[in-house]
Amino acid sequence: MTNHPNSPFIATPGQTFTLADRPTRVDHFEDKSDAKDAALDHAKDIEDLAHRLYGQASQKLLVVLQGMDTSGKDGTTKAVFDRTPPLNVGVAAFKSPSKQELAHDYLWRVHQVVPKKGQITVFNRSHYEDVLVVKVREFAPAEAIEQRYAQINDFERMLVETGTTILKCMLHISHDVQGERLRDRLDVPDKRWKFNPGDLEDRKLWPDFMNAYETMVQRTSTPYAPWYIIPSDDKPTRNAIVARLVRQTLEAMNPTYPDPGYRPEDFEI
Amino acid sequence: MTNHPNSPFIATPGQTFTLADRPTRVDHFEDKSDAKDAALDHAKDIEDLAHRLYGQASQKLLVVLQGMDTSGKDGTTKAVFDRTPPLNVGVAAFKSPSKQELAHDYLWRVHQVVPKKGQITVFNRSHYEDVLVVKVREFAPAEAIEQRYAQINDFERMLVETGTTILKCMLHISHDVQGERLRDRLDVPDKRWKFNPGDLEDRKLWPDFMNAYETMVQRTSTPYAPWYIIPSDDKPTRNAIVARLVRQTLEAMNPTYPDPGYRPEDFEI
Repeated sequence: MTNHPNSPFIATPGQTFTLADRPTRVDHFEDKSDAKDAALDHAKDIEDLAHRLYGQASQKLLVVLQGMDTSGKDGTTKAVFDRTPPLNVGVAAFKSPSKQELAHDYLWRVHQVVPKKGQITVFNRSHYEDVLVVKVREFAPAEAIEQRYAQINDFERMLVETGTTILKCMLHISHDVQGERLRDRLDVPDKRWKFNPGDLEDRKLWPDFMNAYETMVQRTSTPYAPWYIIPSDDKPTRNAIVARLVRQTLEAMNPTYPDPGYRPEDFEI
Repeated sequence: MTNHPNSPFIATPGQTFTLADRPTRVDHFEDKSDAKDAALDHAKDIEDLAHRLYGQASQKLLVVLQGMDTSGKDGTTKAVFDRTPPLNVGVAAFKSPSKQELAHDYLWRVHQVVPKKGQITVFNRSHYEDVLVVKVREFAPAEAIEQRYAQINDFERMLVETGTTILKCMLHISHDVQGERLRDRLDVPDKRWKFNPGDLEDRKLWPDFMNAYETMVQRTSTPYAPWYIIPSDDKPTRNAIVARLVRQTLEAMNPTYPDPGYRPEDFEI
């Protein structure tokens, strides 16, 4: 269990949470270049820590990234793990569930891809979609969704008790900035493949999504897996804040290379 | 199907293959720094190509890395994909099979982790272990192993016919260099966790392993998935050669961002 209770971005477990009180923009850095340098410094430390975690092969780290379309889940992953080789970090992206997945409970596909010993796994979206888009669009009965908050807390507690550290970040953007970014996806030919007209349908439901996020954080920010609400209107600032949290989390896990007890003189090569 | 028939490292399909004729060291670069610069240049291009592959979401790339202990499968992966974010490249590492895996055919666990559309997957070891260590240590009957070459060729042809490009690299090191690297793992405290006394047992069987590799390449270097024999005694040279092959392979695949047909004026945001 590795929390950062003094982080200005934590949603303190047990306290009333109001999403509207949380900034989508902060001035923690002189300028974009300053924030980029900070993110890269963290990314370099993360590479070393991830390698130690891999060598130690006992602890596991799960990083959950949730946020509205264009909030920067891909970009954050790239920046934070810019220096970490693919052997030491993996990404699980959750899209609309397949027929086979829908034939199981909603945690079934999630459980299959949690990190194993020595690994970092980034969830690009997650089981939280099942209390977000599923709630807003009413893809499941209200009573079923109401049960999920406790089910998710139980599932995450089991993961933590069995050796996984969980870091949950909500990438928080403003309605205006989402509009700019969607416009940009349409206007730049090389980005147009990312544009999905369905995103505009979600955008129309913005207040409903914000309500669902607020309830999600209120109900699932636990002492063993609290939420951090990341101001994400400025990309370099967002990256630097998440990278710092990941670095601090790994530092607190304090992974060390195991000593197998061999001495150099034990073997003739 | 994306071959490089003019590569000096290819094991040309249909021709007699003699491993002893293949160098473990070449002088393609002025010095280590020159080779490192080359690898990094390729790695930067690979990042862009991998992103286009991801955007295109139709082709798949499988990179198979095989080699004796200490040949550098981890190090090569790190150097080649140094700039590619984890969203666009994954690693599947094959260790000794579990009881559950052994209860299935040997390709079962492999098939589950082949790349999906838009993805690059690196195999750190692979199904080829089933005609290498399994053969040398006689973990399966000789007749079963004899059948595997054709089974593997059939499996790979199916993958290629259904949209996967396969690049197979054998990281070729000398017996002397393996000795140095194993010694180094013992002598450097932070590397000692990598040392496995079982590796010394395999080292005693070096000629048997070289015979198994030779037969493997002879029997499974096919027009649709040929082997490349990478001189790997010098790490930066090895990395630069593999990175160049990966870059050339991706360039030949020529991934392009799809045009979904939307025009900027089609949507009000």
